[in-house]
Amino acid sequence: MISTKIVNGKEIADKFCEEIKEKVSKIKQRGIFPTVALINVGDDSASNVYISKKQRIAEAIGISSRIYKFTAHADENELAELIWQLNTDDDVHAILLQSPLPPNIEFRKLVDLIRPDKDVDGLTTVNQGKLFSGASGSVPCTSLGILHLLRTVHKKLEGLHAVVLGRSFIVGRPLSQLLLNANCTVTVIHSFSKNITNVCKTADVLISAIGKPRFVTKNFIKQGATIIDVGINRVEENGKKRIVGDVDLENTLGIAGAITPVPNGVGPMTVAYLMHNTLELTYCR
Amino acid sequence: MISTKIVNGKEIADKFCEEIKEKVSKIKQRGIFPTVALINVGDDSASNVYISKKQRIAEAIGISSRIYKFTAHADENELAELIWQLNTDDDVHAILLQSPLPPNIEFRKLVDLIRPDKDVDGLTTVNQGKLFSGASGSVPCTSLGILHLLRTVHKKLEGLHAVVLGRSFIVGRPLSQLLLNANCTVTVIHSFSKNITNVCKTADVLISAIGKPRFVTKNFIKQGATIIDVGINRVEENGKKRIVGDVDLENTLGIAGAITPVPNGVGPMTVAYLMHNTLELTYCR
Repeated sequence: MISTKIVNGKEIADKFCEEIKEKVSKIKQRGIFPTVALINVGDDSASNVYISKKQRIAEAIGISSRIYKFTAHADENELAELIWQLNTDDDVHAILLQSPLPPNIEFRKLVDLIRPDKDVDGLTTVNQGKLFSGASGSVPCTSLGILHLLRTVHKKLEGLHAVVLGRSFIVGRPLSQLLLNANCTVTVIHSFSKNITNVCKTADVLISAIGKPRFVTKNFIKQGATIIDVGINRVEENGKKRIVGDVDLENTLGIAGAITPVPNGVGPMTVAYLMHNTLELTYCR
Repeated sequence: MISTKIVNGKEIADKFCEEIKEKVSKIKQRGIFPTVALINVGDDSASNVYISKKQRIAEAIGISSRIYKFTAHADENELAELIWQLNTDDDVHAILLQSPLPPNIEFRKLVDLIRPDKDVDGLTTVNQGKLFSGASGSVPCTSLGILHLLRTVHKKLEGLHAVVLGRSFIVGRPLSQLLLNANCTVTVIHSFSKNITNVCKTADVLISAIGKPRFVTKNFIKQGATIIDVGINRVEENGKKRIVGDVDLENTLGIAGAITPVPNGVGPMTVAYLMHNTLELTYCR
């Protein structure tokens, strides 16, 4: 049994936000006011929570945020119209299209209307291509936040075997590219994979982004491995609603070397990197 | 000891080219003449060989090819000028910028001048982004050729563990995306990876694209695994120049389930998919 370190993402994010705040204050002295537009479509309760968190942190840091709220019945043209407006609005430096969108609206089509140099979450085809082909561009906030957390645990990522559970275009795939760029050996696992526990057990770093409550237990974990839990799953237990991760944290204590909790693990880092990327896009203008 | 199948890439490519030839002949009856422009810069002897092979196969299939040959002293503007011309030439459906380029010319910058809908090897940032984000676009020829070879060996790729040696933007990375899309578990290994032989030994499918002569031996291979050798390495042995792969084929016989030789493995498939992609771009116009 070893002593498992609980990685306090909230604390790390708060510290990082302090650094961003200082930079924001400097750029404002030059008369430039970093501004992010947050587009929220539909009635997804999680999205509403995220958006208000993002707004609150932006305010605390000194970044202006504008919320554009649409009902689930919004049509694509209306949203496209807004994106075009924001693209040409010199006061807006960054645009975020909060996912998920209602089923009648195609995310890929809409997100690709965002100007790549205002694409704060790096999800346009051009920015995904840049990440994939080694050029510089916006990189998805969650993946950047995860790398940041890993660097607080490991002085050197080079040569570590990172196993990523999940191959989504939002987390799993961009993250696997960042880990490759950081010179990790990278394995991507998904719903069709076999011998999942055995493969996970070879990981020095195990990252779960599959959205299955408490799917990862100690059987998946090599002694001393670092576990990053990206899952945010809403469950009802004993008549109470609560949020749990993809990892059964308590079950892994004494085996994992370090683990991020849910909440207060990856979540705050995603928000912090939204601020970071907004500032970067403001600089680059 | 098992009997190792030698996968005859030449034969498979010839058969595939026959199918393409029929389609080419049909589209020509409609007065459309598929045409590929091949840009060859510098004096790389391998490039010269590839370009003439591509030209020869194109001719055999009925695809028109135009060769644009530049010395190593060509400047970027001159090449950019040509690409702009070809982009707007309605008679040209496909453009290939043969790599490697001389060191003074930046590949990424030039390749991104190619119109994505004429980018026959899928190496523009936009097409790399499309592959990465799950949209349809041109996909690199070598990766498509490898998938084709794998499908001749395995009825089903789903759930297989594919280990890719090499993380280049030309082969390793796009291939890893195609393998993920084919529902393989995918591990990418590179020069900073550790325990390489152990990780390779977990592979159902092992693909080497690192350019190290005979690097992969039987110690890397699980009994019955399929080995794809993408390496084309020029070596001198006993005073004779010859081409060898990344894999020591003879050493793996009796252990590998199937293996592609060099030459006559992946090489002919790359050329065949150049023809396939040229025809696709002609259709899509």
